[in-house]
Amino acid sequence: MKLGLIGLGKMGYNLAENILEHGHSVVAFDVNPEPAQALAAQGAVPASSIEELVRKLDAPRIVWVMVPAGQIVDSVIDSLTTLLQPGDIVIEGGNSHYKESIARSAKLQESGIHLLDVGTSGGTEGAREGGCFMIGGSRTVFDQLEPLFKDISVDKGYLYAGEAGSGHFLKMVHNGIEYGMMQSIAEGFEVLSKSHYNFNYEEVARVWANGSVIRSWLMDLTERAFSKDPKLDSIQGVMQSSGEGRWTVETALDLQASAPVIAMSLFMRYRSLDSDTFHGKVVAALRNEFGGHAVVANK
Amino acid sequence: MKLGLIGLGKMGYNLAENILEHGHSVVAFDVNPEPAQALAAQGAVPASSIEELVRKLDAPRIVWVMVPAGQIVDSVIDSLTTLLQPGDIVIEGGNSHYKESIARSAKLQESGIHLLDVGTSGGTEGAREGGCFMIGGSRTVFDQLEPLFKDISVDKGYLYAGEAGSGHFLKMVHNGIEYGMMQSIAEGFEVLSKSHYNFNYEEVARVWANGSVIRSWLMDLTERAFSKDPKLDSIQGVMQSSGEGRWTVETALDLQASAPVIAMSLFMRYRSLDSDTFHGKVVAALRNEFGGHAVVANK
Amino acid sequence: MKLGLIGLGKMGYNLAENILEHGHSVVAFDVNPEPAQALAAQGAVPASSIEELVRKLDAPRIVWVMVPAGQIVDSVIDSLTTLLQPGDIVIEGGNSHYKESIARSAKLQESGIHLLDVGTSGGTEGAREGGCFMIGGSRTVFDQLEPLFKDISVDKGYLYAGEAGSGHFLKMVHNGIEYGMMQSIAEGFEVLSKSHYNFNYEEVARVWANGSVIRSWLMDLTERAFSKDPKLDSIQGVMQSSGEGRWTVETALDLQASAPVIAMSLFMRYRSLDSDTFHGKVVAALRNEFGGHAVVANK
Amino acid sequence: MKLGLIGLGKMGYNLAENILEHGHSVVAFDVNPEPAQALAAQGAVPASSIEELVRKLDAPRIVWVMVPAGQIVDSVIDSLTTLLQPGDIVIEGGNSHYKESIARSAKLQESGIHLLDVGTSGGTEGAREGGCFMIGGSRTVFDQLEPLFKDISVDKGYLYAGEAGSGHFLKMVHNGIEYGMMQSIAEGFEVLSKSHYNFNYEEVARVWANGSVIRSWLMDLTERAFSKDPKLDSIQGVMQSSGEGRWTVETALDLQASAPVIAMSLFMRYRSLDSDTFHGKVVAALRNEFGGHAVVANK
Repeated sequence: MKLGLIGLGKMGYNLAENILEHGHSVVAFDVNPEPAQALAAQGAVPASSIEELVRKLDAPRIVWVMVPAGQIVDSVIDSLTTLLQPGDIVIEGGNSHYKESIARSAKLQESGIHLLDVGTSGGTEGAREGGCFMIGGSRTVFDQLEPLFKDISVDKGYLYAGEAGSGHFLKMVHNGIEYGMMQSIAEGFEVLSKSHYNFNYEEVARVWANGSVIRSWLMDLTERAFSKDPKLDSIQGVMQSSGEGRWTVETALDLQASAPVIAMSLFMRYRSLDSDTFHGKVVAALRNEFGGHAVVANK
Repeated sequence: MKLGLIGLGKMGYNLAENILEHGHSVVAFDVNPEPAQALAAQGAVPASSIEELVRKLDAPRIVWVMVPAGQIVDSVIDSLTTLLQPGDIVIEGGNSHYKESIARSAKLQESGIHLLDVGTSGGTEGAREGGCFMIGGSRTVFDQLEPLFKDISVDKGYLYAGEAGSGHFLKMVHNGIEYGMMQSIAEGFEVLSKSHYNFNYEEVARVWANGSVIRSWLMDLTERAFSKDPKLDSIQGVMQSSGEGRWTVETALDLQASAPVIAMSLFMRYRSLDSDTFHGKVVAALRNEFGGHAVVANK
Repeated sequence: MKLGLIGLGKMGYNLAENILEHGHSVVAFDVNPEPAQALAAQGAVPASSIEELVRKLDAPRIVWVMVPAGQIVDSVIDSLTTLLQPGDIVIEGGNSHYKESIARSAKLQESGIHLLDVGTSGGTEGAREGGCFMIGGSRTVFDQLEPLFKDISVDKGYLYAGEAGSGHFLKMVHNGIEYGMMQSIAEGFEVLSKSHYNFNYEEVARVWANGSVIRSWLMDLTERAFSKDPKLDSIQGVMQSSGEGRWTVETALDLQASAPVIAMSLFMRYRSLDSDTFHGKVVAALRNEFGGHAVVANK
Repeated sequence: MKLGLIGLGKMGYNLAENILEHGHSVVAFDVNPEPAQALAAQGAVPASSIEELVRKLDAPRIVWVMVPAGQIVDSVIDSLTTLLQPGDIVIEGGNSHYKESIARSAKLQESGIHLLDVGTSGGTEGAREGGCFMIGGSRTVFDQLEPLFKDISVDKGYLYAGEAGSGHFLKMVHNGIEYGMMQSIAEGFEVLSKSHYNFNYEEVARVWANGSVIRSWLMDLTERAFSKDPKLDSIQGVMQSSGEGRWTVETALDLQASAPVIAMSLFMRYRSLDSDTFHGKVVAALRNEFGGHAVVANK
């Protein structure tokens, strides 16, 4: 199969190598010309613009857009809308909100262009070695591209999820689950760290990663992290988030679905961004007011 | 009525003044002799030991024990057990666990001594001006002492709760509710503090304290706290806890009762005691492992 | 002061009586003509349309809009936009989202019309007897109307909160706190209901409402509810919600503010809407898979 | 190696087969004689009493106790205390509380008997095919038995965790993490089930189990569960719990460690045991009191 690939960052570059390795042809473009050049050495055709990329493809064209999310995706898709023709296919593989994907699909459909919204998981390793793809859009279009998805996934690691937006919906919920799993593991180690035992965290993660009920890739990665820094002394417990956990909670609110654990995982991330909190001050001040309990003065 | 009062700290001293003001006689003792001397000026009879205190009472003796909780209570009650006689009454007004109160009641009963377990709320102001008393133990004994409780409470502010331990059980749950209410108010101000509006917190607390659905003594105290320090700049958000919230959560676990909000209020207090967390480090390290997301280095 | 009042439902009708009682003039309109007729008996001037209502006011006109929220508010304000003149004032007292209020204020400003967004608390009793009003918009306009707000509030029960939207922002957060407080109280009674004691809930609510740290209007109402139905046997524990708690959680997400207790209060409400849950089935099925633990069959 | 095995239930029986298959000798006893007979056909030596089992072992004797937890463990260990001799070893592989293991270890030590407390994970499949073992107690004793643990574990699936109790401590925290992970996965499917998409849950679990960040044994089991019952229509969402999640939360309370997600997972389990809740009734009644909001009548 021959396809264009726009966006050669951490995910896109690895994906390009993965696709090439499976014998497909790739026309590659990124605003930064270097990764396309590097891929050329592996057989990719570099393009210096989206126009050139489209020109180098044959109808029906397949263009995989692998740029982060939000306005950048819109800008690339706007360009493609003017360059592509009816029957062409856009694969949108970023971390887009599913409602955006529904809207983009409808808009492209007006020009006769198909959109597949593809949620991608497995990290950069997955993009390179075989990842996990959740795919929404037209089943006919999916059927056409299935051999490609099969090649670049781990075994059984791709799914036609349903109509437009369903791929990104699944990815969003996947990330919500990920937040909850990570917080669960982390709370376990929090309890260990405050116990009177002197656990070796790397060894604990290893035994839990092998044969236990909680064995998981995240536990493998926990082991790996502790192997590099046994007590994580070098880093702070600041937990950033990139938006999908929040979308999951917002969607749960929309659907009146109870998702307390995913929500709490997110709030603990927010809490970690503040070195002190206003709510803590209010509670401390109240305890002082009614019970004369001592407060901790600010320095 | 004439009674002994052991423990003249913040709560006990105010309670003694309250009792005296209502025309009752008080024999007062504390390990620190000063408060008993001060109360003598208001008509109390000071005692320099528990033995002396008991000696100065007439059978059936009434002894109110107003010492914190735990071992000190046990030690005082052990002394009383050897000094009191069948038919005498001990009022235990500290923050004791209800299971301890059940055990102490049973043990005193072996010597024919009655125990009323009394949960006290309203802070030091309540102890002085009229508080809230939740009373467990024998109803007959309660009936005998009701005039006293009526005098020292605000109107309708005392309750015979039921058999032994029920007074402290109610006080424990009261504190659990208090944790939840305080955290609720505090989260509201947390949201205000991060908004783009420039709210005057004292004024906000005042309007919420007057006529709103959430008007409450805690909101009055919130207003008072902000009147002293408009943004609470002088204090840290460190939320200590004295044990009753934790007992409520443990009791909820015992009873398989869902109490997520009270539990979460407690966990946020614990969280506030740590300037950084190990669970945060684990999550940050995991994000770095699978997605290459940046971590915040420790200084 | 003379003002128009649009919307004579539970809140609007009581408010009209409150305003009239304080000597102000009210031109009253509702799509249902009956309440305006009833108010006429108390001195109000009934109007049979928004046009008539506006016609019966003198410039600068003051029109209080007291209709629920959302599209109805928009529809009424759209009508007013065409009927009012520069310098006139609209008071919007519904449960509107603060972002809507910001947008409406800006739009009305284009026609020279002022908007005050007014969050109202205290329930129907408050609307009648003296409520709590949080007011956003121009301070000059507020100063002009302050005598009115003063008359219809309980003492200190009104606040100029700040620029456009701040009134409804405060009301939203107020409701978030309300959710948390209600859930806190409710969890306390949940624990009581599962204990081995045989508490009289009405009496417990009464003692907690008098002199305790958690005394509050909500505790007064808890006592009142139990006085009508001692164990609430007649109702189901289905907890509806009208949107403001959800907005508070969404706003906390927007602002990266940790509000775990308010969020959890909301999720417990959602949980209560389902007689059984899919997440529960998944957990039960998983326990069966790995441990052979029995599941409860569906009937 | 030759060892006695007491308790041939789901876990013990599978463990016995696992041990036998690796060439060790097993003297097997259960109060129910059938499993020991069945194991005899595979080379085990059946015993009809604990006395006989001990008699058939050579000093230093090794006895693996694989009975549930609590009083049954105590009763078996009490019997062994009178039958074993100094230098003998007891392996306690049930789901015991780590504090009990510390106490039992100390008590056995008085008789010169060693105790290893062994947390076991991996379910019945793990017990049979190779499980995960977390081992506390004397390192010297562990070193002596390491070949056995190596044989019956999956690769890297055993760990010497530290002094007495550390094995069961790790197992307890493992289960706490398990609760959180299960609830996280379950909430994800809850959100899916309320969306407008018509997901095939088995396929979703499969794609998430292959190549994604959240791939895990629990996700494999989720796929398996849906393969048997596509929408879990046959079961109710009643989530039982066996105690270790609760112990984890209690330990977090002891250690003042914040574990909100594990706690919330547990409370959602408790919530699922009730078809209706008292806290829901209280909230519904309060909404009715202050806002006139309709309640749902009980049938």
